[in-house]
Amino acid sequence: MNGAGAAQRPGAAPAVVRIIGAGLIGTSLGLALSRGGTRVVLEDPSPTAAALARDLGAGELGTTDDPPSDLVVVAAPPDVAAAVVAQALTRWPDTVVTDVASVKESVLDAVTALVGRRRTGQLRRYVGSHPMAGRERSGAVAAQADLFAGRSWVVCPGPETDDTAIALVRNVATLAGAAPVVMTPAEHDRAVAVVSHTPQVAASLVAGRLRELPEPAVSLSGQGIRDVTRIAASDPLLWTQILTGNAASLLPVLDALADDLEEVRAALRNLLDESGAGTPRGVLARAVAHGNAGHARIPGKHGAAPTAYGTVVVIVPDEPGSLGRLFQDMGEAGINLEDLHLEHGIGQPVGLAEIAVLPAVVERLQAVLTAKGWRVHAPG
Amino acid sequence: MNGAGAAQRPGAAPAVVRIIGAGLIGTSLGLALSRGGTRVVLEDPSPTAAALARDLGAGELGTTDDPPSDLVVVAAPPDVAAAVVAQALTRWPDTVVTDVASVKESVLDAVTALVGRRRTGQLRRYVGSHPMAGRERSGAVAAQADLFAGRSWVVCPGPETDDTAIALVRNVATLAGAAPVVMTPAEHDRAVAVVSHTPQVAASLVAGRLRELPEPAVSLSGQGIRDVTRIAASDPLLWTQILTGNAASLLPVLDALADDLEEVRAALRNLLDESGAGTPRGVLARAVAHGNAGHARIPGKHGAAPTAYGTVVVIVPDEPGSLGRLFQDMGEAGINLEDLHLEHGIGQPVGLAEIAVLPAVVERLQAVLTAKGWRVHAPG
Repeated sequence: MNGAGAAQRPGAAPAVVRIIGAGLIGTSLGLALSRGGTRVVLEDPSPTAAALARDLGAGELGTTDDPPSDLVVVAAPPDVAAAVVAQALTRWPDTVVTDVASVKESVLDAVTALVGRRRTGQLRRYVGSHPMAGRERSGAVAAQADLFAGRSWVVCPGPETDDTAIALVRNVATLAGAAPVVMTPAEHDRAVAVVSHTPQVAASLVAGRLRELPEPAVSLSGQGIRDVTRIAASDPLLWTQILTGNAASLLPVLDALADDLEEVRAALRNLLDESGAGTPRGVLARAVAHGNAGHARIPGKHGAAPTAYGTVVVIVPDEPGSLGRLFQDMGEAGINLEDLHLEHGIGQPVGLAEIAVLPAVVERLQAVLTAKGWRVHAPG
Repeated sequence: MNGAGAAQRPGAAPAVVRIIGAGLIGTSLGLALSRGGTRVVLEDPSPTAAALARDLGAGELGTTDDPPSDLVVVAAPPDVAAAVVAQALTRWPDTVVTDVASVKESVLDAVTALVGRRRTGQLRRYVGSHPMAGRERSGAVAAQADLFAGRSWVVCPGPETDDTAIALVRNVATLAGAAPVVMTPAEHDRAVAVVSHTPQVAASLVAGRLRELPEPAVSLSGQGIRDVTRIAASDPLLWTQILTGNAASLLPVLDALADDLEEVRAALRNLLDESGAGTPRGVLARAVAHGNAGHARIPGKHGAAPTAYGTVVVIVPDEPGSLGRLFQDMGEAGINLEDLHLEHGIGQPVGLAEIAVLPAVVERLQAVLTAKGWRVHAPG
């Protein structure tokens, strides 16, 4: 009854899921599904990796008499995902197969090329997907059952994909705690080129400029460059695969970025030439203003439209328990934290906690914290 | 006895400081110095701005019989700083004058040009400076007495600056809670071009790419792009002045960044051409690896060299008091938080708190929190 589960109960949860690839994503998915009661069968080219994932509680190891699964999830590295998907479609001729690679169109094209020579009907059972979750660390040891909690999980049907296959992958995403979003592979790839791959390239290149800077200059680094370059710590091998796989969608975005950068550079050159050419200050102001406009579109917490939260800044002594007392005091007043930015000073034993709350409770929060002895600022 | 205080007591704190410009920096400095017992006299071209700063507690308003001051701090916008400095050097012929503009060489050049026509000895009393503190908001209402707490305050003597003037500005930086760092104006400008101005340009341009993205694509934005573009919310007018003022040091850095970006684009083009030209995957991997290396140089908390903190990830229910209980539990165990990253899911009422602590206490923290009922992960 391979795949019968999905075919018979289109809206139902899968009873058995096979996960191929016991890295960060595969192991995390195994943990999440196992915790929810789904039976998970694990396999990996590395027996050690598979055994580690099993020991962490991500599922059972595949054997010669595996139970038939309702869904095969290929959680292999992006550069081998298509080949493993194609093998799976042949190996289990009635089971729905998905993958979780960060790029979707090139994987679909490669799968189509591989199975097209054999049997086109197989593409009905394939639907690519991409959980928008990851870490700067990799491997089963970094896995978390909650990795997908509250994240988007993009489901990208190809032109031949059956509705039941889409429904099954949506169900698995929901079981893992994610919010499924359906897009075409091309829409997905264009989106992540802008919201994920371009920021990665920018962070890496800006951080790269620090390599040869004298030490006293590096020591002036503040919170701005820390935030801009946090993801520059990501894995070069994984990102080479991702950028390679999305080259077609990424290149036009980087070309546009290079054009924007050239406008800024031309404005700076005009200022230095004192040629009076162009309107260099207007160009610079527009670049920053466009950044304001783009930044304002990024959704806030819980995928909602950005809310203008009120902010309260509190001075926090850098000692055990001080943040505990702060949030205890907020909690006792029934005030919920919407977001938090913690900033440490250099050379001084204090930190600044920038607390975002709903605008309606800003004044009460200030009053409560001040009454409890906190040093509070409410910026305008 | 204008300036006599500084001349007679080179290591002593100034008794009276005059601050010209009642914006974010001037008002914050007035608050910090007033709190420490220094007498502060405020002036601003806008009587309303000056009065607001006074009402906030930043000092007294200037009158016709002002007390002589030991130091004049010009906290005017970058594009008028030099003119105001030159006026101050003439207006108070024995008093040390500093400014706080974010660029230093162009201000020194402009001051030199302005006073050179009158009296060169005036340059002994001028020393530029730059507190590495700021906010995405501006004006006196955003001022904080703690704005400089723990930040670097760069002091940039010119070739003619007296040692007593340098000592006086260092003292004021220390009184404001900052850590003074002495550099030449050129060293300062080259440093901030890399650690501050280039990240700002990159953040603005990456955020600008979101302006015309379809809504479903924008909704896939995750923590990566949020961090990369946080400072894209900054003020266009202020940043136009800063980028303009540092054009000479910024342009070579942006040129190098453009070269790096062109290498990445060329690699993507090679991949799409399938020409087999070059080693595109090697270029991409190297760009990300260089970012790793540069990122690793950014100092951690308290200006210390980066420490490999241990990290523990805790699932936090999104309800009042839950973070309070978490940090209370940490505090009771005597464990100090080194850094905190709070991440919200989309569509689910949980958050992830990523807690950085000294590596030696990671295991104990896990044990303590698990015993108290928290869901804890310790990534490898």
